[in-house]
Amino acid sequence: MLIGMLLPMLVTAQTDQLWFANQPKKSGWCNLYSDLSKKDLTEQVIEKELAGFFSAFNKVKVSSDKVANFHIIIDDQKKDNLGAEGYKLYGKLTAPERIDYTIVAETPAGALYGVYAFLRMKKLGAEIPVLQDSNGQAIVERPAFQVRILNHWDNPDGSVERGYAGRSIWFADGKINFRSDIETYARANASVGINGTVIDNVNADPKILSPEMLQGVKTVADRLRPYNIKVYLAVNFSSPAALGGLKTSDPLDKDVIDWWQKKVDEIYALIPNFGGFLVKANSEGLPGPMDFGRTHADGANMLAKALKPHGGIVMWRAFVYNPQGGDRAKQAYYEFMPLDGKFDDNVIIQIKNGPVDFQPREPFSPLFGAMKKTQTMAELQITQEYLGYSDHLCYLATMWKEFMDYPTFHDGKSVIETTLNQKVTAFSAVANTGTMKNWCGYVMAQANWYAFGRLAWNPNLSAREIAKEWVMQTITKDEQTVNTICDIMMQSREAVTNYMTPIGLHHLMGWSDHWGPEPWTSIPGAREDWLPRYYHKAAADGIGFNRSSKNDGSNAVEQYQEPLRSMYDDPQLCPRELVLWFHHLPWNYYFNDGKTVWETLLDRYNGGVQQVEQFQKTWASLKGKVPELIFTEVTKKLEVQLDEAQWWRDGCMQYFQTFSDMPLNFTPKYTMEQCKAKLRTKSYLERQKD
Amino acid sequence: MLIGMLLPMLVTAQTDQLWFANQPKKSGWCNLYSDLSKKDLTEQVIEKELAGFFSAFNKVKVSSDKVANFHIIIDDQKKDNLGAEGYKLYGKLTAPERIDYTIVAETPAGALYGVYAFLRMKKLGAEIPVLQDSNGQAIVERPAFQVRILNHWDNPDGSVERGYAGRSIWFADGKINFRSDIETYARANASVGINGTVIDNVNADPKILSPEMLQGVKTVADRLRPYNIKVYLAVNFSSPAALGGLKTSDPLDKDVIDWWQKKVDEIYALIPNFGGFLVKANSEGLPGPMDFGRTHADGANMLAKALKPHGGIVMWRAFVYNPQGGDRAKQAYYEFMPLDGKFDDNVIIQIKNGPVDFQPREPFSPLFGAMKKTQTMAELQITQEYLGYSDHLCYLATMWKEFMDYPTFHDGKSVIETTLNQKVTAFSAVANTGTMKNWCGYVMAQANWYAFGRLAWNPNLSAREIAKEWVMQTITKDEQTVNTICDIMMQSREAVTNYMTPIGLHHLMGWSDHWGPEPWTSIPGAREDWLPRYYHKAAADGIGFNRSSKNDGSNAVEQYQEPLRSMYDDPQLCPRELVLWFHHLPWNYYFNDGKTVWETLLDRYNGGVQQVEQFQKTWASLKGKVPELIFTEVTKKLEVQLDEAQWWRDGCMQYFQTFSDMPLNFTPKYTMEQCKAKLRTKSYLERQKD
Repeated sequence: MLIGMLLPMLVTAQTDQLWFANQPKKSGWCNLYSDLSKKDLTEQVIEKELAGFFSAFNKVKVSSDKVANFHIIIDDQKKDNLGAEGYKLYGKLTAPERIDYTIVAETPAGALYGVYAFLRMKKLGAEIPVLQDSNGQAIVERPAFQVRILNHWDNPDGSVERGYAGRSIWFADGKINFRSDIETYARANASVGINGTVIDNVNADPKILSPEMLQGVKTVADRLRPYNIKVYLAVNFSSPAALGGLKTSDPLDKDVIDWWQKKVDEIYALIPNFGGFLVKANSEGLPGPMDFGRTHADGANMLAKALKPHGGIVMWRAFVYNPQGGDRAKQAYYEFMPLDGKFDDNVIIQIKNGPVDFQPREPFSPLFGAMKKTQTMAELQITQEYLGYSDHLCYLATMWKEFMDYPTFHDGKSVIETTLNQKVTAFSAVANTGTMKNWCGYVMAQANWYAFGRLAWNPNLSAREIAKEWVMQTITKDEQTVNTICDIMMQSREAVTNYMTPIGLHHLMGWSDHWGPEPWTSIPGAREDWLPRYYHKAAADGIGFNRSSKNDGSNAVEQYQEPLRSMYDDPQLCPRELVLWFHHLPWNYYFNDGKTVWETLLDRYNGGVQQVEQFQKTWASLKGKVPELIFTEVTKKLEVQLDEAQWWRDGCMQYFQTFSDMPLNFTPKYTMEQCKAKLRTKSYLERQKD
Repeated sequence: MLIGMLLPMLVTAQTDQLWFANQPKKSGWCNLYSDLSKKDLTEQVIEKELAGFFSAFNKVKVSSDKVANFHIIIDDQKKDNLGAEGYKLYGKLTAPERIDYTIVAETPAGALYGVYAFLRMKKLGAEIPVLQDSNGQAIVERPAFQVRILNHWDNPDGSVERGYAGRSIWFADGKINFRSDIETYARANASVGINGTVIDNVNADPKILSPEMLQGVKTVADRLRPYNIKVYLAVNFSSPAALGGLKTSDPLDKDVIDWWQKKVDEIYALIPNFGGFLVKANSEGLPGPMDFGRTHADGANMLAKALKPHGGIVMWRAFVYNPQGGDRAKQAYYEFMPLDGKFDDNVIIQIKNGPVDFQPREPFSPLFGAMKKTQTMAELQITQEYLGYSDHLCYLATMWKEFMDYPTFHDGKSVIETTLNQKVTAFSAVANTGTMKNWCGYVMAQANWYAFGRLAWNPNLSAREIAKEWVMQTITKDEQTVNTICDIMMQSREAVTNYMTPIGLHHLMGWSDHWGPEPWTSIPGAREDWLPRYYHKAAADGIGFNRSSKNDGSNAVEQYQEPLRSMYDDPQLCPRELVLWFHHLPWNYYFNDGKTVWETLLDRYNGGVQQVEQFQKTWASLKGKVPELIFTEVTKKLEVQLDEAQWWRDGCMQYFQTFSDMPLNFTPKYTMEQCKAKLRTKSYLERQKD
């Protein structure tokens, strides 16, 4: 009993610190000289971080190698062109066996990122270049994107849409009420370069802009500012009417324009470094400019003009589709392409990675690269809405890299390159945080937050590199163990795809809560494009969504540039991983490996389950090599994951079998009835309380 | 002992009859009326075939439903436009429970094919349409290709290059000496529509054109003619000098031209329906027009002009490459494209399916579709030179269909479509026949011969359909057993690819005999492009042949039409199955499924071995359901196949490991030393004698 009570304490002591969990013992000495004022809040963070790392820490007033061995230099001359957030970092041999370090930056923010880079490299055992060496070349880093931002889908009532780690870290009972250890959130973000946060849900409550609420937002902004994190707000397009009492929210209405300008001025009076607005408009029932016969551009530009004098931006979401619009995957393109070039220069269009909705695998959204006169940015999802919640080990960097590096064939650019070289550049992701002690509901889910930040800073990092960094900072530095854990992480997303939605299937999950398999759902009166059958189209004649140019396909392929268009259009050339996204194929259609669609589905669903079993075996071999509570947590979660992988396999394959009339090659753990019952009898959040 | 002696007899009684092995008991009656003369040799075959099927067979002289119930009608008016080899087939209800059949054709050949189609449908239990039915529509078939031809690589001394079924069925001791049961060969071919055969090796001996040899060839032609099979000869381009005693074989030399014209006249005097020549020139040391400063077109056209008055054709092979020519995969394209449009209209360029040489998987040869003003035809290989000889169960129709149906993006045509719509159309394959009782050395290898013929007739048939037809005619009609065997067949080629040359690897096999794994070969003085290392390029930095446009790649991708060029050029878009064909990738390069190149190679090599193990298990379950001797033969061969699959895996992966320095995840059956020893100690033919 005693142990049982002590152990949770130990977990707390570790994983609530995120990737600061596996801190090394303090060692070495640091005499810091800094060009920054002692009163600078960022300087204070820097000092605290260095003091936490070195066993002896002093602040000195002279930047001389004799006195200081750590120099923070503000380069007013901008000699190194480091920009608002870049840094230069190097060592210098000043005496035998004494290496001093220098961080050069143009801003406190740059210095802070340099310090976090220094600490990370030290923790990872990476060599910091010593300039006198023949190979010595200072590290110079500048973030790839200006805005590296989390989207919290947190509601004022404290609930979190698609949150699997408890309640909101920002709100409770209609008010701002942030976690007392919010500094951990801030330093975690800063340590990986995240510099923005939208604290409220894109399904925005108008009252987020109420004076009372803004007072609360100001307190958040004040706490995050030292860490170079700006606050942004998701706003409801109907706020002028709903909150301001106007008769309309028409973006061309003068009163509306005035209302927004005043509201923006009010915000900046409270929060001088306020970032701007995120807007979900005319999407899934939310209001927007089209309600008034205006366009997305009219709406976005109106807000942008209000923000512009203050340096704020508008992130306008392209996640739009309507029930009558035909193939949902095509709609954002249709709605936005005609507006290309019509957006103000402080508007950026925020596009989900895929054309539907954060599925385990989607092709990239064809808007990337296609909008040539419009600023665009990617929206990823860290929270595992469709990937097993915070119960499944699913490292997402592999998925993101697949997306980011995919060639668009627009001007020879990869997807991510199409969002660079703009006046405003940004990279966003929906957060997976909550009030649970460990922030994310699963230690392994923290890795995705970490990975998002690292990729936003440097999209060229590999998924494996990032995984390794995270494991070493969070769990252990033992090389073999690190590699073993990375191996699991690297394959985990494909495993999830295999047991949930292999070879291009998508949107098979449970109604509303998006949990578990529910390809069979039929809800009277429901929007057809919210039902799995709209997507899988399983029938006696086969399975998959014909988005090709042939046989009455939706011709979504047309939105892609050649050669992708032709490649996707041909079931033989279409990547196997996406084939049922683009094609409706007979159950006995043969792929080049001599296996039918049916056999391939069996292979993948079984394969996914087997991968999880393998993860379990591999993880079991780490007993004693990772902190006991992490070992136990992952062990327990893998049990849940295996069970749910089996459930997915059983539910989907038995359901598909009703059409294919072909044999299964496994013994289901669950009957169809049990699959359905499991979905209905217990919600995820209820289950979390067990 | 008695059983032991009887059983081989039973095997003989079955599989030496090829796909006539599983003959049904005779039943029904047939009163045949035929427009064909009783003296027509093809008519005699028709009568024999019908007499062999019906328990009562009579020939009648009046085409009346009262008298005849089977009508063969020669349509002199060409009303149905059936062409030289087409037929129409239908039934007619002439009395309650009496259906009479009619075959209409313009030629005896068409009638013969109609009869074989009738018999096949009857054996398969397929319904022959009855015209009075509302859905009754006569079957009308015309072959897709005019020339459907086997290439025998048989030498006058009786050896067979790449033959794994004993000695030549045509030659012995420098003379024609064909199998006494050559009619079985003839009817087998005719039953699937094969209408031509090149009886000698493309590495042609000049003496094939000697008067004595031609007398022998005439005897072959006479035996095959009733079955509508024409004889062709592979000729040595130096024949005028080597055989005729001329000073040169220069195709523009008048004496040479004369010599060939006389030789052709001599042939046609003996064999009026002689088909023409097949020529391998300026390839792998063989002579050709380029030896005299002439082009392939000069050479081919000279022969074509001699053949033209007699209706003969020249099949000129594009299988050319030279040691100094850079990437071997690119050379045929370079040599032939400049000649596009320069060939006479009875010349057809014969192109191997892939750009290298009959590997388990290759991309299609880029010449298909690229030569727009030149007649082209495909050369497949039935004999399993690179696919486990006649020891491995490897159904090739899946490979061929992959090749045939592949989109070239030349005028929207698939590969096979680029060879249609020509004045001369043809489809060829290297035969797998020999003197062994069962013709092919393995009952399962017969299926490939069958499949080639069926595809040459109708390229739209599916690999599965053909497998099913073959199993039912050869082994059993029990539906479940048929399906089980077809399942194995359909996956067998991918299994071989997996354990031999996965994800685009190629040419890893043993020196000279092309047997077993030998990626390590190093033979002093050997042509570099005959060594596996030329192809796999395994080194510390990775594996695979960079044929991309980047990083000093050979840019072979350039020979493909967009979108294929861009698709192959990008390792992320390149089909996984071909990725090491086109790219040199680091061992730890990650694919989208989170697995490295190394892990993927392990997966495939292990997977291939496991597939063979699964074939064994599945086959074992058929005991009692298939003829005992077929059961035993396949059981024994699968043991050899498993052993060799393990050998391939062990040899390749342990060899690659010397570069990758990464761990294996299986226990090798053979050490590297044993892998090498196995290759050297016993040749295949010696082993066949065991």
